[in-house]
Amino acid sequence: MNYKLVFRLLGRLMMLEAVLMLPSLAVSLIYGQGDALAFVLTMGITAGIGALPAFLLKPRRSDLNARDGMAVAGLSWAVLSFFGALPAFFSGAIPGLVDAYFETVSGFTTTGSTILTDIEALPRGILFWRSFTHWIGGMGVLVLTVALLPRLSGRTSLLAKAESPGPTFSKLLPRMSDSAKVLYGLYLLLSLLEFVCLMLAGMNGYDALIHTFGTAGTGGFSNYNASIAAFQSPAIEWIIGVFMTLFGVNFAVYFHLVRREWGVAVRSEELWVYLSLVALATLGITATLVPAGTGFWTALRQAFFQSASVISTTGFSTTNFDLWPGLAKSILIVLMCVGACAGSTAGGFKVSRAVLLTKASFREIQRTLTPRKVSVIRFEGKSVQEDTLAQLGVYSFLYVCLALLGGFLVSVAGTDLTASFTAALTCLANVGPGFGAVGPVENFAFFPAPTKLLLSFLMLAGRLEVYPILVLFMPSLWKKN
Amino acid sequence: MNYKLVFRLLGRLMMLEAVLMLPSLAVSLIYGQGDALAFVLTMGITAGIGALPAFLLKPRRSDLNARDGMAVAGLSWAVLSFFGALPAFFSGAIPGLVDAYFETVSGFTTTGSTILTDIEALPRGILFWRSFTHWIGGMGVLVLTVALLPRLSGRTSLLAKAESPGPTFSKLLPRMSDSAKVLYGLYLLLSLLEFVCLMLAGMNGYDALIHTFGTAGTGGFSNYNASIAAFQSPAIEWIIGVFMTLFGVNFAVYFHLVRREWGVAVRSEELWVYLSLVALATLGITATLVPAGTGFWTALRQAFFQSASVISTTGFSTTNFDLWPGLAKSILIVLMCVGACAGSTAGGFKVSRAVLLTKASFREIQRTLTPRKVSVIRFEGKSVQEDTLAQLGVYSFLYVCLALLGGFLVSVAGTDLTASFTAALTCLANVGPGFGAVGPVENFAFFPAPTKLLLSFLMLAGRLEVYPILVLFMPSLWKKN
Repeated sequence: MNYKLVFRLLGRLMMLEAVLMLPSLAVSLIYGQGDALAFVLTMGITAGIGALPAFLLKPRRSDLNARDGMAVAGLSWAVLSFFGALPAFFSGAIPGLVDAYFETVSGFTTTGSTILTDIEALPRGILFWRSFTHWIGGMGVLVLTVALLPRLSGRTSLLAKAESPGPTFSKLLPRMSDSAKVLYGLYLLLSLLEFVCLMLAGMNGYDALIHTFGTAGTGGFSNYNASIAAFQSPAIEWIIGVFMTLFGVNFAVYFHLVRREWGVAVRSEELWVYLSLVALATLGITATLVPAGTGFWTALRQAFFQSASVISTTGFSTTNFDLWPGLAKSILIVLMCVGACAGSTAGGFKVSRAVLLTKASFREIQRTLTPRKVSVIRFEGKSVQEDTLAQLGVYSFLYVCLALLGGFLVSVAGTDLTASFTAALTCLANVGPGFGAVGPVENFAFFPAPTKLLLSFLMLAGRLEVYPILVLFMPSLWKKN
Repeated sequence: MNYKLVFRLLGRLMMLEAVLMLPSLAVSLIYGQGDALAFVLTMGITAGIGALPAFLLKPRRSDLNARDGMAVAGLSWAVLSFFGALPAFFSGAIPGLVDAYFETVSGFTTTGSTILTDIEALPRGILFWRSFTHWIGGMGVLVLTVALLPRLSGRTSLLAKAESPGPTFSKLLPRMSDSAKVLYGLYLLLSLLEFVCLMLAGMNGYDALIHTFGTAGTGGFSNYNASIAAFQSPAIEWIIGVFMTLFGVNFAVYFHLVRREWGVAVRSEELWVYLSLVALATLGITATLVPAGTGFWTALRQAFFQSASVISTTGFSTTNFDLWPGLAKSILIVLMCVGACAGSTAGGFKVSRAVLLTKASFREIQRTLTPRKVSVIRFEGKSVQEDTLAQLGVYSFLYVCLALLGGFLVSVAGTDLTASFTAALTCLANVGPGFGAVGPVENFAFFPAPTKLLLSFLMLAGRLEVYPILVLFMPSLWKKN
């Protein structure tokens, strides 16, 4: 890779991160809980270290190639998570550096798994930053860079693509920086809408901001130990449930809606499959809860909230769903494996991939009967290339391997099968809670440090859709060019 | 499909099945436990019903096409399992028809999951047939047909291929019937070798036969409730462990060994990966058992036995491995997901598929760095076509979906996550025992009838490598041609 170029970009991203900490510093100054110094210190260190390569390195060639793009994406997420962990570490809010790193990776990757046993004990500035990482990570820090600083580098499209590898990113507008601006605009708008709704439902401004960050990024961090259950408000549950679903939708749909291209928006295959999954899961879980003694409307609300929370990979909870009947938990496991729409802020395998592979499977079954018949797979009105399908197959294999080997390595620490494998899956899919020892009312604190780093790796791999993180282990990435 | 041709073949297969029951009838006559009548009745019914289409239908075209081949493979396994279930049902050994069907599917597919709570209470003839289905199912009833009756139909290669879809079947000899004969010859030879070893280790003839059937087919049925633990003999454990490993090897390797083509046999990539997996798993499990208090040699023996048992998808047990530490169980889960070599009598995803997809994954990771570089994947010394990789990707997706949806549907019955998902996986991979409520000292009796039929479906799908069973649900299969 082009070391000078990559490190210059990394330096600039670190300086940007220091700037992004300003609102959190403001919050900590307002509430005066003694965490302001930690922010000032972190911002100084981060901007200071970042300024060195940002200003001193003068790359001869300033054109990013594919390799550099992957390197920047993979490295920046790992590095920004490290510096993002410093406020919690310096302030003593999270005394262990590995713990603080896990928590920050969980924030940026919008996973929402936590190592905190008492969230409410933390200073408000730290909690604000913790949730703000969700909001930044949801749409992506590189996309933000491209939106704010389009001239930063030559082919910024490679950067944004490496961070948001869904098939739809670049198609909104011809210029990448315009697309990035539109995406962040829509993101801001939807976030604002949720914030207002939550205020109207009776939340205070701080809580409303925190939970908007958590929903918009499909992250799942709350500032309450009981998560959304702390509010005891059906209205708030419905609002957050609806917005979790909305943030799991491909943003291209909103783009078309804003441009009043209703037809294009409504014809999205992925959208309908996604909404159908939410509806089916809600009905299915309701049907298991009612016979177990929950009233119909409560069951429906809990079922919808939890289905939306898991499929959108947010991970908020209003109830300890680990105590639900086996079928309800299995429904959640399946949603966890599918994930939400490509081009949304959500993680997971993505509905579009599942739909495409299902179509490919049907064709393959059909092909065993009529081997000579040629048929092309269509998706979203376009024919899909065979190459794409082959790549998808490999991606799904890698994804399963990561989940499986991840679960296997987690179990080295001595946790049981359910906790090990759902911990790996929930981190890889960026959901948040798992089952058993990592269930919704539990946390990840008990894992030994190596397991926390492994799960951090899985969260990063899941958020960046595998490749930008895995290439970091390829020697050929590190060759000079 | 060509109905007349397909049903004539099915009829002939039923007649063959009646003949295959003769040894079991002999055993039941020798021991005189009152089950002989059930065999006579079943043989009469099966041969009688089979004779009708076998002799009455005169297809105009007698050439099998791909569709007919798939239909025969899928239907014959479902139908032969039904008639194979009748002796246990008629004799009252297994009073429920669904239970008897599950047990017979488990036998033919060499899974080895059982609904029996007291195996030792059954008459010896019934137990003999139960284990003999393993032996037939291991190498395949259609392969047997092709070996015995090469003139039965035009393109018998399609039949044998549909039943043994590994990539290597047809390559042994130019004529399919010769290949089938060689395979059964090697199968018989290895079985005989194991039988002799077991006799020398002190088993009586009956037990030695039963356990040879169970090992050779990589099935796992024992005639003792405690499985291999009943013998309390380290020698027997080592012998069965070694033979389980051997029967998980691609039979092409033995073919080359017999022809003294040492080089070809030893250069098999799949073989070395497979043996390495067994060795690594053995060491890994030993390393978890020793600190937990088991003596080194006992731990090594148990670890090797259980690793060989699970990767070869046999499912014998010498100890309740459900009580092992989490890591040891996770190692077994990974082995369960990989399975043994293609072209062996074992089930599972198959080592060759895992190796190929791993290579494809590395290439895909590399490709993100150097998108324009073209590279071809090589396996067993040959370059692999892109089509094959795409099909493999789809196959792995289908396999994961079956495991996942299977586990999901099993959980409808109310079992917990671990039992539901490992029951589905162990049946799909044709292993036998799972974890938790379906662990090695438990059984599948408690599942409701629909779940037993679902698991039977998964066992059949696993044994026939998915497609021949799934096509039965495609309307286009049932169109006349």
